Amino acid sequence: MGNDSRINMDGLQRGMDAAGVDVLVAVSLQNFFYITDTLLLSQMIMPERLCMAVVPREGKSGAIVCYCEERQTVDDSWITDIRTYLEFHESPMRALAEYLKERGFHTARIGIEKRFLATIYVEQLAALLPEATLVGADGVFDEARAIKTPAEIKILAEAGRRTEEAIQATFQSARPGHSEKRMADDLSTRVLNAGAISFWITLSVGDNTAINHPFPSTKPLATGEILRVDVGGLFQGYQSDVARTAVVGSVNREQRSTYTRLREVQRELIAAARPGVRACDLYAMYQQAFEQRGFSTTSQAVGHSFGIGMHEIPVLHACEMTELKPGMVLNIEPAVKDSQGYLYHIEDLIVVTCDEPEILTNVMDTKDLFVIH
Amino acid sequence: MGNDSRINMDGLQRGMDAAGVDVLVAVSLQNFFYITDTLLLSQMIMPERLCMAVVPREGKSGAIVCYCEERQTVDDSWITDIRTYLEFHESPMRALAEYLKERGFHTARIGIEKRFLATIYVEQLAALLPEATLVGADGVFDEARAIKTPAEIKILAEAGRRTEEAIQATFQSARPGHSEKRMADDLSTRVLNAGAISFWITLSVGDNTAINHPFPSTKPLATGEILRVDVGGLFQGYQSDVARTAVVGSVNREQRSTYTRLREVQRELIAAARPGVRACDLYAMYQQAFEQRGFSTTSQAVGHSFGIGMHEIPVLHACEMTELKPGMVLNIEPAVKDSQGYLYHIEDLIVVTCDEPEILTNVMDTKDLFVIH
Repeated sequence: MGNDSRINMDGLQRGMDAAGVDVLVAVSLQNFFYITDTLLLSQMIMPERLCMAVVPREGKSGAIVCYCEERQTVDDSWITDIRTYLEFHESPMRALAEYLKERGFHTARIGIEKRFLATIYVEQLAALLPEATLVGADGVFDEARAIKTPAEIKILAEAGRRTEEAIQATFQSARPGHSEKRMADDLSTRVLNAGAISFWITLSVGDNTAINHPFPSTKPLATGEILRVDVGGLFQGYQSDVARTAVVGSVNREQRSTYTRLREVQRELIAAARPGVRACDLYAMYQQAFEQRGFSTTSQAVGHSFGIGMHEIPVLHACEMTELKPGMVLNIEPAVKDSQGYLYHIEDLIVVTCDEPEILTNVMDTKDLFVIH
Repeated sequence: MGNDSRINMDGLQRGMDAAGVDVLVAVSLQNFFYITDTLLLSQMIMPERLCMAVVPREGKSGAIVCYCEERQTVDDSWITDIRTYLEFHESPMRALAEYLKERGFHTARIGIEKRFLATIYVEQLAALLPEATLVGADGVFDEARAIKTPAEIKILAEAGRRTEEAIQATFQSARPGHSEKRMADDLSTRVLNAGAISFWITLSVGDNTAINHPFPSTKPLATGEILRVDVGGLFQGYQSDVARTAVVGSVNREQRSTYTRLREVQRELIAAARPGVRACDLYAMYQQAFEQRGFSTTSQAVGHSFGIGMHEIPVLHACEMTELKPGMVLNIEPAVKDSQGYLYHIEDLIVVTCDEPEILTNVMDTKDLFVIH
């Protein structure tokens, strides 16, 4: 193994011991970046160009990348044993198998990402290493990544803060009559200007808020309608994900009350996010808090862990028994519809500590429903 | 099957016949969108939320989506038989297997995306449908999608044109001393304002151009350095992908000559992209044209087909024997380094016709190297 202050190496080691694997192979963008500190655009836009990191239980880690990604991997990674393969001429799995053989892993238990790696590659690898055992090791990565290091929390806090600042500035400059797309482009640009290298956005008003992830449309911001934004960017390889709700022009009594009660629920859930509480307990609290207020639940999850990936474990749903631990970073995001069918959504990022959780997205005062004038 | 003017239904039908499959299952964002006309943000940012389209050789198509994506799928798709599954409570593969059983496909040859679908899902599906045969059918989708319909070519031409206009405007407003990131954000914003819902970008100057896909940095545009941009956006579910090269401040003789000769090569390759020519023939022409000019080749491919995906078949590399056909849309993109190690890159989108290829990205005059003043 190597070292990097971002990586939970102890967690990886314990996971490998528990899973009984001799070596881990990271292939997804998330795990490759987690291990190598190298963020490759090609893994985002042309995933067939596989790049792999190899982490043995003992001994140094290595990476196998497409020839054209060698320079960036050498520049960015702490890993020094970097091999390449020639795209179109040789299979990445052949290069991986050769490397594993050279390292003495031809009869090993090899931990692979079964939840990510496509069948065709696993079939190739199994044929190339007939004496090895390929074991699903997604959970080893998941569990190590679930506990963030201080270096990771710092990046996530900064990403959340900058995203929230972008939302605040966009809310302040939006005007009734602007289109969803115009406002979304304004916000996206602010997220990029704040340092993100990419973003995703869902921004909708009125009836469109009821769609789960609507793309911004030409629909104008009409007075009296609820506006919902859920946005994130990629900062230093880590995501942000913040949702805020506003109303256009003027607010009526039902809207104010719906928003205020939704935020109450969110703050109750945040306060409850302490070590030892299970993910499903938070989900049950959400159900109960909604029921008490006469709200209908709108989602099978009320939040999720978060980091390099958008949804990391634990996701806060009814079947997830994982207990919260210090160092977990969670998005808490209840949402509710009003009698018009407009969806209200508040999402904040918190870190679980030994004591009270810390809210990392704390730029905006979310106590009252924001009015776009 | 259903119908949508965007879809090459004949091609899918022929591919299914040739592969001997009774039913196709689309799971990747690209194939799901191709079949259903529904572009789901969740497929981009949380791919574990599987959504599937089922296309039988005979009879109507169906879709199985996560409960929270039902509304958008109903709104956007021509498919009317839309089923849902409850995330976290049931496996998407169970919902898929139930649907396939209901449709009488429990003993069928089922075409799946082996190059996309993760091992864990294929193992689940095989266990749930023990009498069925799961066949890799990636090629059926690939070959149908390789021939674009007029509706698709129209979208791609518009996407390319708008992206090129954004590059032109950004080149005109960039100034020596601006940072790569500032210029990249300006260009990204223009791509979004032109109608894209997302983008990717690589923009670099000087030494950074030698990295394959550099993320824009704080490095300033320094006089005398080469600037390379390669950018794309997602327009109506279809990609754009255009590369242009400029020089900062003033151009020297070597730079002018390198650029002019690179463009000559690119135009020769474009002119040669006619029906019956094989992908590998174009690659061989590229090698020969580079050799004649004393250039070293910098890539294992000189272009690629293109559409909903960034790299579609055929990719123009030495081992690809596929013949070009009318309706194929290709990016032709040679690149070369000068004696300073700066990389020059020109990429244009063309459509193969019965006669001369048509260049779809024709807004900028690329004859001379653009100078950023």
